[in-house]
Amino acid sequence: MPKSSSAQNGLMEKIVSLCKRRGFIFPGSEIYGGLANSWDYGPLGVELKNNIKKVWWERFVHRRDDIVGLDSGIIMNPKVWEASGHLGTGFADPLVECKSCHERFRADQVDVGAPCPNCGKKNMFTKPRLFNILFKTFVGPVEDSKAVAYLRGETAQGMFVNFKNILDTTRKTLPFGIAQIGKAFRNEITPGNFIFRTREFEQMEIEYFVREEDWEKYFEYWREEMFDWMKRDLGLNIKEHMFELDIPDGERAHYSKKTIDFEYLFPFGQKELYGLAYRTDFDLKNHFKEPPYKDPETGKEFWPHVIEPTWGVDRSVLAVLLEAYHEEKERVVLKLLPRLAPYKAAVFPLLANKPQLVEYARKIFDDLRKHFIVDWDDRGNIGKRYYSQDEIGTPYCITVDFDTLEKHDVTVRDRDTAQQERIPVAELKAYLRKNIYE
Amino acid sequence: MPKSSSAQNGLMEKIVSLCKRRGFIFPGSEIYGGLANSWDYGPLGVELKNNIKKVWWERFVHRRDDIVGLDSGIIMNPKVWEASGHLGTGFADPLVECKSCHERFRADQVDVGAPCPNCGKKNMFTKPRLFNILFKTFVGPVEDSKAVAYLRGETAQGMFVNFKNILDTTRKTLPFGIAQIGKAFRNEITPGNFIFRTREFEQMEIEYFVREEDWEKYFEYWREEMFDWMKRDLGLNIKEHMFELDIPDGERAHYSKKTIDFEYLFPFGQKELYGLAYRTDFDLKNHFKEPPYKDPETGKEFWPHVIEPTWGVDRSVLAVLLEAYHEEKERVVLKLLPRLAPYKAAVFPLLANKPQLVEYARKIFDDLRKHFIVDWDDRGNIGKRYYSQDEIGTPYCITVDFDTLEKHDVTVRDRDTAQQERIPVAELKAYLRKNIYE
Repeated sequence: MPKSSSAQNGLMEKIVSLCKRRGFIFPGSEIYGGLANSWDYGPLGVELKNNIKKVWWERFVHRRDDIVGLDSGIIMNPKVWEASGHLGTGFADPLVECKSCHERFRADQVDVGAPCPNCGKKNMFTKPRLFNILFKTFVGPVEDSKAVAYLRGETAQGMFVNFKNILDTTRKTLPFGIAQIGKAFRNEITPGNFIFRTREFEQMEIEYFVREEDWEKYFEYWREEMFDWMKRDLGLNIKEHMFELDIPDGERAHYSKKTIDFEYLFPFGQKELYGLAYRTDFDLKNHFKEPPYKDPETGKEFWPHVIEPTWGVDRSVLAVLLEAYHEEKERVVLKLLPRLAPYKAAVFPLLANKPQLVEYARKIFDDLRKHFIVDWDDRGNIGKRYYSQDEIGTPYCITVDFDTLEKHDVTVRDRDTAQQERIPVAELKAYLRKNIYE
Repeated sequence: MPKSSSAQNGLMEKIVSLCKRRGFIFPGSEIYGGLANSWDYGPLGVELKNNIKKVWWERFVHRRDDIVGLDSGIIMNPKVWEASGHLGTGFADPLVECKSCHERFRADQVDVGAPCPNCGKKNMFTKPRLFNILFKTFVGPVEDSKAVAYLRGETAQGMFVNFKNILDTTRKTLPFGIAQIGKAFRNEITPGNFIFRTREFEQMEIEYFVREEDWEKYFEYWREEMFDWMKRDLGLNIKEHMFELDIPDGERAHYSKKTIDFEYLFPFGQKELYGLAYRTDFDLKNHFKEPPYKDPETGKEFWPHVIEPTWGVDRSVLAVLLEAYHEEKERVVLKLLPRLAPYKAAVFPLLANKPQLVEYARKIFDDLRKHFIVDWDDRGNIGKRYYSQDEIGTPYCITVDFDTLEKHDVTVRDRDTAQQERIPVAELKAYLRKNIYE
């Protein structure tokens, strides 16, 4: 990511444009004029996003003894949202309405003395009223109050309401966690900044259950884990681009006694990328009348306390793209961590009209794709193909030339350094595995 | 799966019970009395489901040149559903209402001459009226007709509306396909049969674009691909448990000129598992006023035709569980394909109170888990641990005993045969890789 603020001018536009042009991210419902800042992940975007989710799941679920996965419903019994407090004022935005044109605005984003941004009339704003941001729907054939249900506003509640089911089936003891990846929905009044704030978004969340007296220890533990994830698994420059914001009393969510926002230096400002919250025993106490946990040693029953690290998937994609984006003399290059790159390698026959080269290259391609996700390109000159792969972050380009036919080696060109080396065909797979996964 | 119909009695109950008891699948919102046949995937269920999706994506996206992935929004511009015909009568169930108690029923599931199943009054049913099964919601702060949006009733439309974006960014030529995995929602009047029919469900779909004159060829191609997937990737007994149903004129979805339902012999009857439809150019013609495809050779512009193979993720999970379920003399065993099993292996120290055994076993466990998903168990006797792993489908159990300390080999016990063999510790990884992935 360019450092100076002048270089950042237009960076978002460049990212949005690259994403559309190369098939990372398309405007949602574009052929119908879009739908209020919604976005669809294209062929490369879905691979990048899936890679982020995969690395996360492997790290926090598969490689650990103390965290198990869950995939709960988007639509739950509305009593879940009553108990969690999301139907109250804690999950609502204050809105003002223009009495003339009836357009509504977030109270903290309009100057009530200024003219209405929609119709231009002055002094027409109502007093702020709270507007709940859960999406409402109706289950069953009758649209009445009995049939109302909500799209989940966070994946977290699915983990709380399944707490006892998971305890009973896994026999975990404190501390332990439940992890979930999935869509959540918030009827934001002002979505915006590309995939930064959308009404439909994807979360990766862990609810980590601890004894009350241990909460500070595990809060700090998760704070460090989150920084390590950003640095090692996403490749973010945490020293220069990440900032911690300790949310003061009165500004935290209704369930939290301590929250840190991890803010990333986006081109549109320093904004929340991830959050870490100490939710106390608020949620479990609201969902379970009886203490849901029994200490296996003392027999004491109680409500565990919760540390909640939360990661936005879409914001992760955006931060990774921004961090990876580099403009160099002749090229734009996405310096993605190889593990995250949509294609791990691209295979080129030097010339598309030489059947021996094409055939040899195709053999390499077919062999590699059994193990890696690999692209194929035989159009135009090699330089253009390199730049085309640079722009989508492919770490290695493999060219089959006339020497290959005799010596059975290929040119492997490194994305970041643009250096080339000859590698024996027989060693290609091990070379890629080592450089991508070790 | 037991073959005789008498053995099938109670099979669903056994599966539902096993799923809850071992953490595959929990009733949704259970602590609040549930929510009309909704289900949450627990720690083992989410792994099984993810494995099915992963195998599918690898097979149909990563290993092919002609299919690319997409992840489009659940909420799209409502014009999408107008154009696709889903807001019309084609995506609606006929309902009758009891004029006395106002309960509604699917017209094809009540006898209008019989008393109302709810209030018992006779001759009170209205004439059938069509009830659209798209879930409705409101985007933005005002709940009026301008703000109405829908949860997608199929992932397919996201692929159609992005057709040109994908064409422009990938330069694919016919035939080629777009693949997507994601949630869809249908406000079914009568969900039921565990995860077979739920209002929130997950689909794996491919829209495969062809020239009109080629549709029959590719229809047959995808028919074979689907059978091969069921057999090789899911392990279904296609000869005895799968049936094809060619849907007759008048009963197909509004967009289809030919549809085959692939029906599986569930304990509750022979029901649709997957579908294959020839959607003609219906969708692309409705979404694109101008022909969206130009033949690179002839320059002719036209609307490609579509073959659509569709897989239900949740139904796949159910069929796989049913197929894998076996009751033997002393045990219940899930004979899952190793690739699909939540755990690939379990590691046991023979005795939990011998630190040398525990330490050695833990070393093996930590080493294996870098490559596979592995469980750990040190409770009770070995026989019980075997049966516990059998019931969740773990293909291999590895026991560290006193011989291990001297000879550095372990007992590996095969789930299906219950046979044991000694394998050198140094060869364990290669042994598992070979038996699971080759």
